[in-house]
Amino acid sequence: MNRQALIQLIVRKRSFLCIGLDSDLAKIPSHLLTEEDPVFTFNRAIIDATHDLAIAYKPNFAFYESRGTAGWQSLTRTINYIRDTYPGQLFTIADAKRGDIGNTSGQYACTVFDPRSSGLEFDAVTVAPYMGEDSVKPFLAYSGKWVILLALTSNKGAEDFQFFGPRDHPLFKEVLTKSTTWGDTGNMMYVIGATQAKMLGEVRNLVPDHFLLVPGVGAQGGSLAAVAENGLNQDCGLIVNSSRDILFASSGTDFAMKARAAATILQAEMEQILIKSPATGRAFH
Amino acid sequence: MNRQALIQLIVRKRSFLCIGLDSDLAKIPSHLLTEEDPVFTFNRAIIDATHDLAIAYKPNFAFYESRGTAGWQSLTRTINYIRDTYPGQLFTIADAKRGDIGNTSGQYACTVFDPRSSGLEFDAVTVAPYMGEDSVKPFLAYSGKWVILLALTSNKGAEDFQFFGPRDHPLFKEVLTKSTTWGDTGNMMYVIGATQAKMLGEVRNLVPDHFLLVPGVGAQGGSLAAVAENGLNQDCGLIVNSSRDILFASSGTDFAMKARAAATILQAEMEQILIKSPATGRAFH
Repeated sequence: MNRQALIQLIVRKRSFLCIGLDSDLAKIPSHLLTEEDPVFTFNRAIIDATHDLAIAYKPNFAFYESRGTAGWQSLTRTINYIRDTYPGQLFTIADAKRGDIGNTSGQYACTVFDPRSSGLEFDAVTVAPYMGEDSVKPFLAYSGKWVILLALTSNKGAEDFQFFGPRDHPLFKEVLTKSTTWGDTGNMMYVIGATQAKMLGEVRNLVPDHFLLVPGVGAQGGSLAAVAENGLNQDCGLIVNSSRDILFASSGTDFAMKARAAATILQAEMEQILIKSPATGRAFH
Repeated sequence: MNRQALIQLIVRKRSFLCIGLDSDLAKIPSHLLTEEDPVFTFNRAIIDATHDLAIAYKPNFAFYESRGTAGWQSLTRTINYIRDTYPGQLFTIADAKRGDIGNTSGQYACTVFDPRSSGLEFDAVTVAPYMGEDSVKPFLAYSGKWVILLALTSNKGAEDFQFFGPRDHPLFKEVLTKSTTWGDTGNMMYVIGATQAKMLGEVRNLVPDHFLLVPGVGAQGGSLAAVAENGLNQDCGLIVNSSRDILFASSGTDFAMKARAAATILQAEMEQILIKSPATGRAFH
């Protein structure tokens, strides 16, 4: 999906909500455990209940890999279901945080972008920057696909290395500035944790036009209003993720309905933000 | 496998060779492609032909994931074959370069260490440091298992961020110094690329007793002699990986025999190094 199509999704749905499909088998409603593929059944119900409120879904690979081949089957079914049922209506993010030497990153790119190879086809993949340019470039070789590079993450450990270096130009800023030359605003985004909302203004100074994927709203403590205030640009430029607050809004048979209710609250808040923001107001009035 | 058992493997086999099972379906001998699981058949033949020369095997997950669920089956069969056929005789490394926020890294730890969850059980996993302490700690919660943290990698992109910061204390040194407090020499190792042999002395100043996993010998251009000269400690302290030079020594039906020949050359060189080194000579004479 190219940038223009992504922006059109945001405008049409009046939302920049991504739902993180961190579908932990131990946390999904117990009545689903008798299904042949409980995680896929759960995901399908969540997607059907929220597809008009969200612009994107983001399965975190850890929750699938941890169940081995069975987990990969759930992941494959989920991503194929989205593409077959809602074609062109949803942006899909492989939250895999991959990165290796060049030829090996090429194999990871096959995994997430080439369905003839892996059975999977996402629109975007999260990539870790530590190994540098040749670990990122192979993902950028796919037309219409995106790299979402980790810059400033939402966890406590972000402080350990992401702020290393000169006070006014720590590592995460070096990652932002150096990597902008590897791709462009049509094939690269950055992960900026919502818990880092106070840093979003500084991030925007370095990458004013890129989309930012913002996890950490809700369960991890980030505020949507603060993120929007510091992060919106004229194209919205934000994809804000919520996982647990939506997925596990109820552990009963009403889980999908409760997920929709939770997503509706976020979408409504996002719509108000888009209408009221000086950055985006013109497009959304 | 604990540290003492690993050292005993090195002493008994007179080798510190790891064979990287980067078993690209496009590169394995074509006569295997009619097999039900060509990659597993290839891996099994390589392992049977080299198990007495190598102390460790290291499948890089990218080459398995890129074939989706079929690839995960090959990976699972391979790692189970090693554990069932050569119990206690080989150290296994999941070269996955994972890392995520704490609870998600916990899921990745399940993937590589908990066979009841994923069907896989490795002795060690490579982890990317960018997200800091809470992204690494969940892997250290497994007794007898190891984290191998990326510090200084063998690729060109290593220069982009790993040398960021003060000249005498760039990022990779900060990674080394900070992370030593997260575990100890019995559950943490570091990836130091063989192409960085000139930096190995500085690495040894910071982590004199840790094991180092050294990729990049051979195809990537690193020299075994230079690595050993700068990296050996009294327990050997090195695991040197070779992948393509062994795996793809021949594309014919003699591939396993040629792989053994290539591994034999490396093992013999390692034995001489272990005997002649002032660091390890006493144990190996």
